[in-house]
Amino acid sequence: MFQVTILGSGAALPVIAQDFRRYPTAQLVSLPHTHLLIDCGEGTQMRLQELRIKINRIKHIFISHLHGDHYLGLIGLLSSMHLNKRNQDLYLYGPEGLAEIIRIQLKYSHTRFNYKIHFQELKTGVAEEVLNDGMFSVTTIPLNHRIPCNGFLVKENPKKRKIIKEKIPQDIWEWQYAKTLQKGEDVLDEEGKVLISAKDFTVQPKSRSYAYCSDTSYFEPIIEQIKGVDLLYHEATFTNEEIERAADTFHSTAAQAATIAAKAGVGRLIIGHFSSRYRNNLEPLLREARQQFSEAYLAIEGTSFVLEKENLPVG
Amino acid sequence: MFQVTILGSGAALPVIAQDFRRYPTAQLVSLPHTHLLIDCGEGTQMRLQELRIKINRIKHIFISHLHGDHYLGLIGLLSSMHLNKRNQDLYLYGPEGLAEIIRIQLKYSHTRFNYKIHFQELKTGVAEEVLNDGMFSVTTIPLNHRIPCNGFLVKENPKKRKIIKEKIPQDIWEWQYAKTLQKGEDVLDEEGKVLISAKDFTVQPKSRSYAYCSDTSYFEPIIEQIKGVDLLYHEATFTNEEIERAADTFHSTAAQAATIAAKAGVGRLIIGHFSSRYRNNLEPLLREARQQFSEAYLAIEGTSFVLEKENLPVG
Repeated sequence: MFQVTILGSGAALPVIAQDFRRYPTAQLVSLPHTHLLIDCGEGTQMRLQELRIKINRIKHIFISHLHGDHYLGLIGLLSSMHLNKRNQDLYLYGPEGLAEIIRIQLKYSHTRFNYKIHFQELKTGVAEEVLNDGMFSVTTIPLNHRIPCNGFLVKENPKKRKIIKEKIPQDIWEWQYAKTLQKGEDVLDEEGKVLISAKDFTVQPKSRSYAYCSDTSYFEPIIEQIKGVDLLYHEATFTNEEIERAADTFHSTAAQAATIAAKAGVGRLIIGHFSSRYRNNLEPLLREARQQFSEAYLAIEGTSFVLEKENLPVG
Repeated sequence: MFQVTILGSGAALPVIAQDFRRYPTAQLVSLPHTHLLIDCGEGTQMRLQELRIKINRIKHIFISHLHGDHYLGLIGLLSSMHLNKRNQDLYLYGPEGLAEIIRIQLKYSHTRFNYKIHFQELKTGVAEEVLNDGMFSVTTIPLNHRIPCNGFLVKENPKKRKIIKEKIPQDIWEWQYAKTLQKGEDVLDEEGKVLISAKDFTVQPKSRSYAYCSDTSYFEPIIEQIKGVDLLYHEATFTNEEIERAADTFHSTAAQAATIAAKAGVGRLIIGHFSSRYRNNLEPLLREARQQFSEAYLAIEGTSFVLEKENLPVG
């Protein structure tokens, strides 16, 4: 499983109406062996409960920056993990200041969690791999916002090549060839001639990848790093009608998000972080994005985007 | 208007189920001229939006103590007030540490609110009047919890006596008598004899009062201060089956809350701060409370308790 679930799609002001609710930013990335939480706006623990996600299955939490709509739900979530008798360690990644903010709140509530938090302070302006658990890596994506802000690139580690067993003549196959082929090397016969070519009889399973680009102005330097990802989330606080306001506030328009997606040649684009002015009429944002990039979708609370397993063409 | 609206009735762990939601503690006290917010658990600003309450009509915010379920929604609310272009001053009352917690979060988000917050640090262990705006007063109620914790007594200021005009014979009435009677003094004729007695022809309009007793163990010293209030909120985290756990965690049972209500001779009792173990089955808590005090009610999100205007019996 590699799946991104939108927990909150709003910007600074939540919008609660009778028929829709837009909450501050949070996303759950579900991997085969763990959950990652990316950003944690106010009320994220309630969203997780609504979706019946066990909070203590979350092992890593990434905070992009310290604007309230991206982290104010964190202390409540950490407390609930404690009250739910968590004992496994938690890994927290965020900007300078986050540890101090947590520490001071624990101090005044006289609370000591019964689990350990490993906090890694994120650098700014430089991409760094902050997690690699053997299956997945997470690398920061330096963004351009009013305060230090990182996006996150979640990527499956390269996998062994997959042997297309059914294509190989049965009479020449021996099990010990597998390791060679999986590395992408040809199997040679005694005379050094190619017996089974890796190119013809294996495929490279794709390493799926997701890039989360939180609050940022239009910022082309990210393109190189997110090139070809299967799924890109890019903020789109405004439409192009507000392009100046977007620049002033270090945010992006839907067209700008889609331009980044197109230039980076990504698979699909999710836009989100919608200004409260659009309330539940997000069509103008989607329309504008799709003019630049047809595979654009809206971040809507509770929806999931699945990254499918695909084998790359042989080669 | 004098009305208490429950925004959150839960304890440390929110409970979000398909057919009900229990949020962390918060209450809105609506007065004729202003709103008071008492405690502000995570998500309070969303509850206020649900109830279509304009957040910038709140002038005073009271925080009982620094356990997360009573204040983690505060920074988000203050930020939204700022984004909603608030310019009137806000008055904030809370324990030591609250100002520091706010300051540090504003520092890292590089935020400066466009309105002024007047913070008053509350003492512990001593009742003090912290607000009197000429119409209402708010006095702290020292409680007994694991960390410094205050309840709040909201009380209308004493009013002028009301003259029962229709009972006074028309031929003896003159307008200049009003002031005398409103002060509770008799009107005398030229010979010094009582012409109109204040006792018979005026009533004392009641000064309505509401006592909010946040997290506390069973604590009889509060009785004196809350004697005769029209409406009492007293926490009831557990039933008596968990009376030891209540004592250990400095909380109360429903029976204990009701005992306090009975001993203080209050009008009505609201119980709340229900442990998540009761989920949506709050009947055992209500039943237990009503055994001690029949006028007990459950705090349920979105319900309001109105304090009616009543004239006291003549005297």
